Amino acid sequence: MADSTGRALSLRVVVFDVNETLSDMSPLRRRLVDVGLAADRLDAWFAGVLRDGFALAAAGDARPFGEIAGANLGVPPDAAAHVLAGFAELDVHPDVAAGMRELAASGYRLVTLTNGSAGMSEAMFARAGVLDVLEHRLSVEDAGRWKPAREPYEYAARVCRVEPAQMALVAVHPWDVHGAQRAGLTGVWVNRAHTDYPAYLPDPDVVVDAVTGLAGALSRRDPPRPR
Amino acid sequence: MADSTGRALSLRVVVFDVNETLSDMSPLRRRLVDVGLAADRLDAWFAGVLRDGFALAAAGDARPFGEIAGANLGVPPDAAAHVLAGFAELDVHPDVAAGMRELAASGYRLVTLTNGSAGMSEAMFARAGVLDVLEHRLSVEDAGRWKPAREPYEYAARVCRVEPAQMALVAVHPWDVHGAQRAGLTGVWVNRAHTDYPAYLPDPDVVVDAVTGLAGALSRRDPPRPR
Repeated sequence: MADSTGRALSLRVVVFDVNETLSDMSPLRRRLVDVGLAADRLDAWFAGVLRDGFALAAAGDARPFGEIAGANLGVPPDAAAHVLAGFAELDVHPDVAAGMRELAASGYRLVTLTNGSAGMSEAMFARAGVLDVLEHRLSVEDAGRWKPAREPYEYAARVCRVEPAQMALVAVHPWDVHGAQRAGLTGVWVNRAHTDYPAYLPDPDVVVDAVTGLAGALSRRDPPRPR
Repeated sequence: MADSTGRALSLRVVVFDVNETLSDMSPLRRRLVDVGLAADRLDAWFAGVLRDGFALAAAGDARPFGEIAGANLGVPPDAAAHVLAGFAELDVHPDVAAGMRELAASGYRLVTLTNGSAGMSEAMFARAGVLDVLEHRLSVEDAGRWKPAREPYEYAARVCRVEPAQMALVAVHPWDVHGAQRAGLTGVWVNRAHTDYPAYLPDPDVVVDAVTGLAGALSRRDPPRPR
């Protein structure tokens, strides 16, 4: 990747998706049961939340994650609030903190970019001890569209004062990797579940099976400049 | 609604969504079981298909429904093909044929507009005896984006040679009603399941609990011109 003068644009910033990419959402199953839903509704619920958020993005609109997630539960408001409060109790996957520290030690700047609110995950990052390595914790709420529309990726680049080509987006969700690639970022797919990447999408630029090892994979691809 | 000369633009064309709005998808559960999946995966699977199709629309891309639906099953290609073949065996809900005939008798032109392929539902409409009242059976495959992006609604208006304001979009899915309204159509929500419309969306223009009765609801709102 090069800029308009032909100068190579090295990767400077690693942008992490949050829900499922960093957080283990499985404890939310217990909260679904608390409000009378089946534990295995989690997948269908979260798929429906993303479906409806992406529909708004495709139509040129946006609403906050909490509104769409709450409405999709189909339970009274206080029950929905109980489920959503569970996001504050989630923890990061075991590979996240070590992987982030490797990236920071390699000179990459680290930010998060969530379709949720930035506040939903603050307690999680504090418990994981990684708040100090996160330069920004960004939300699409300040970009006017949910990922994978182009706007949030461009918003993150503006906040970080780099070009999209100097950023890598890290996600377990192929749709996020693809949207980032369309916006000019390097797309990193974390294949923690060892599944197949959708054949209907262009290949991800980088594939890792955990956040640990990502610093090595990125450095081999595009050696970072010193911070 | 009025055009640029102030002349009232009456509703001329009723555009029907297809999957779930017209078709009863529940027989697909048996095909999920045939390929080793749980019957109750249907909701999560279809939500995931729409999620991934909408993600592409939000990112400015499109892939055919069959590719995304097949990939989301997570089964070998022949098993996925077996499930997808079930779309040709689906039938319309009991209110559909009578409702369409009422609309046609009231002077409305009728078309379908699906995020799937037009061919997927041809046998269903033939069995229901409504092929003769459908002026066009349209697919987003010819519009370059899935609904609820603006392009498919505008594509349908071009094919029908009317303004978007002369069309009503009929769907059970709030995201489709909303996308149509954003594109300038009248949005009709079919609330067959008697649920609540999402509070985070603007109200639908018309609500009916079945396709029967829609002709009366539209005519009271905006009397049609003779065909």
